[in-house]
Amino acid sequence: MRVYNFSAGPATVPEEVLQIAAAEMIDWHGCGMSVMEMSHRGREFTEIATRAQADLRQLLGISSDFAVLFMQGGAIAQNALVPLNLLGQRKSADYVDTGAWSSRSIKEARRYCEVNIIASGQADHYTRIPRQSEWHPSAAAAYLHICTNETIGGLEYHWTPETRADIPLVADMSSDFMSRPLEMRRYGLIYAGAQKNAGIAGLTIVIVRRDLLGRSHPLCPSAFDYRIVAENESMFNTPPTYSIYLAGLVFQWILRHATPDKNALEAIEARNIEKARRLYAALDASAFYETRVAREDRSRMNVPFFLAEPRLDELFLAEARERGLAQLKGHKSLGGMRASIYNAMPIAGVDALTDYLRDFERRHG
Amino acid sequence: MRVYNFSAGPATVPEEVLQIAAAEMIDWHGCGMSVMEMSHRGREFTEIATRAQADLRQLLGISSDFAVLFMQGGAIAQNALVPLNLLGQRKSADYVDTGAWSSRSIKEARRYCEVNIIASGQADHYTRIPRQSEWHPSAAAAYLHICTNETIGGLEYHWTPETRADIPLVADMSSDFMSRPLEMRRYGLIYAGAQKNAGIAGLTIVIVRRDLLGRSHPLCPSAFDYRIVAENESMFNTPPTYSIYLAGLVFQWILRHATPDKNALEAIEARNIEKARRLYAALDASAFYETRVAREDRSRMNVPFFLAEPRLDELFLAEARERGLAQLKGHKSLGGMRASIYNAMPIAGVDALTDYLRDFERRHG
Repeated sequence: MRVYNFSAGPATVPEEVLQIAAAEMIDWHGCGMSVMEMSHRGREFTEIATRAQADLRQLLGISSDFAVLFMQGGAIAQNALVPLNLLGQRKSADYVDTGAWSSRSIKEARRYCEVNIIASGQADHYTRIPRQSEWHPSAAAAYLHICTNETIGGLEYHWTPETRADIPLVADMSSDFMSRPLEMRRYGLIYAGAQKNAGIAGLTIVIVRRDLLGRSHPLCPSAFDYRIVAENESMFNTPPTYSIYLAGLVFQWILRHATPDKNALEAIEARNIEKARRLYAALDASAFYETRVAREDRSRMNVPFFLAEPRLDELFLAEARERGLAQLKGHKSLGGMRASIYNAMPIAGVDALTDYLRDFERRHG
Repeated sequence: MRVYNFSAGPATVPEEVLQIAAAEMIDWHGCGMSVMEMSHRGREFTEIATRAQADLRQLLGISSDFAVLFMQGGAIAQNALVPLNLLGQRKSADYVDTGAWSSRSIKEARRYCEVNIIASGQADHYTRIPRQSEWHPSAAAAYLHICTNETIGGLEYHWTPETRADIPLVADMSSDFMSRPLEMRRYGLIYAGAQKNAGIAGLTIVIVRRDLLGRSHPLCPSAFDYRIVAENESMFNTPPTYSIYLAGLVFQWILRHATPDKNALEAIEARNIEKARRLYAALDASAFYETRVAREDRSRMNVPFFLAEPRLDELFLAEARERGLAQLKGHKSLGGMRASIYNAMPIAGVDALTDYLRDFERRHG
């Protein structure tokens, strides 16, 4: 029996995608090989990688002004690779601090440049995202960095910042990438680990405006130099072929959500809005559960919540697991619970969780 | 129908491993999740990663003096990460140049330090490995780097170099790692992309003597700092979980080869010796096929060969494909053919190839 898996990432994958992957494991499309056995330069894998990129470009409306890079090392590697690739002659970068992941990006960036924290939610214990009117951007920054969804704190930008034309907006989008449409032209660079909404761990997707290529630091490893990766169509080194294949299957799954009046990502977004609405409504309905993030900044992806009586935490998790509701434990830095409800979490999974929230309160509240 | 897949990497995977992966795809051991959906910090995946490392340590006899790192980016990333991590206060490193992959390592290392090419096969067109007596090591090198198997040229060390106690031996072992036992204590660091003998693309295995940790360059990304990766048990960033799982299945497959008188890697080596013997014997038996590498340096893993009449190359490949012998085309830099016969290539695959070699010559020779 499959559980409803609320892990923050690696996270639940559409069961339909897993079924396809299992069925194709031994012999992909009659070629006599598994995808994981194919030369990355062969005809079969080239077809898989080309289609994955084309589908991604279609889903997000990515123009040829941008390069799409299939990289490795996750968002944590990008925390170093962004300054190594984008600083160029500039000595500083602007960062907005909205919680644990922004803070990690800032800590790593400080090894490479002067970091201006141009706005911070720290004084509010990271329960709200500072509005653009509260930001104090600098004039000489190489770029302006945000984290669009704080996976641990459960905050998400529901607006796109305006930045100066000469200061590209860089976004760590790991945990809300592909969960909604986006205005690509407003960004200079987006990066995301695939293991939330776009596939599995081991693949990092970087989308970068081509005019930002070619500024890398002399000590940036060639395998992680955006210009070199772009010029070699992500095959300067052997790419994580199976993770690219899985991402491609997820993109095709997303594309199948298109309806007559909504494109695929609009339809996915509508479903994500509805899932979040149902879960937050159940949590708001009772003082037995607490949420801490300002309503307008609540993440649709990661929902941290707390029991009024923390002594019940272990019981809550144990009974949840018995009902097939898995990986609900909150991040150790915050405690409490966290339900991650990415694209692949069905509405039925959210309903099973809200039923359980009510039932647990009735029995123990 | 499964083909015999002679790809140089990503390469053939034991069919038994693929069958297990397919069977476990939807629900691993009754936990209700796929391995690719598990939190890397959860109980289930911790069990998988711990066992994979323990099995690897058992197979290679790796003592606690060494850290085993599960990294990303492949051997090409390591070409930069080795100098970034090991140079410390030293300004130069020694490299032995035995072909295409050594040359790539050297080119990248030159971005970080002075490179002493202490021996080179270039004058011999990379058809032999310079013997240790021909090497001219320097006294102040931070390390001495070799490539134990040249995947393109088809040369392999069948001996282990002696190095000074204060100059650690670093080996790019990507394409013969796990194909034979090794004397771990003779090395300071070994790195290998997993996609030849140890699993699939997206995982890079680094085995490093612990006393070499802590020398990294200030600009080395934290995610690629060996000390940080070691201290965090390869979970500083989200590891490539599914690739680690697959490597673990391959390690278990290797372990099942142990016999009463041979340990698992000795048994695998014996089989690899026999496969190579049969293939080289068939090639040596006729002037219709040419090999160029000195006999004592021939690779057991990658066997480049050439038809006496290159006009027959396309026909040779097309007929091979019809017989279910796939990916035999040589690397574009050398032309001709290349048969990679890694651990997972069964003896029956080699026999099918040698039958075809004789048959093709009979019809077209």
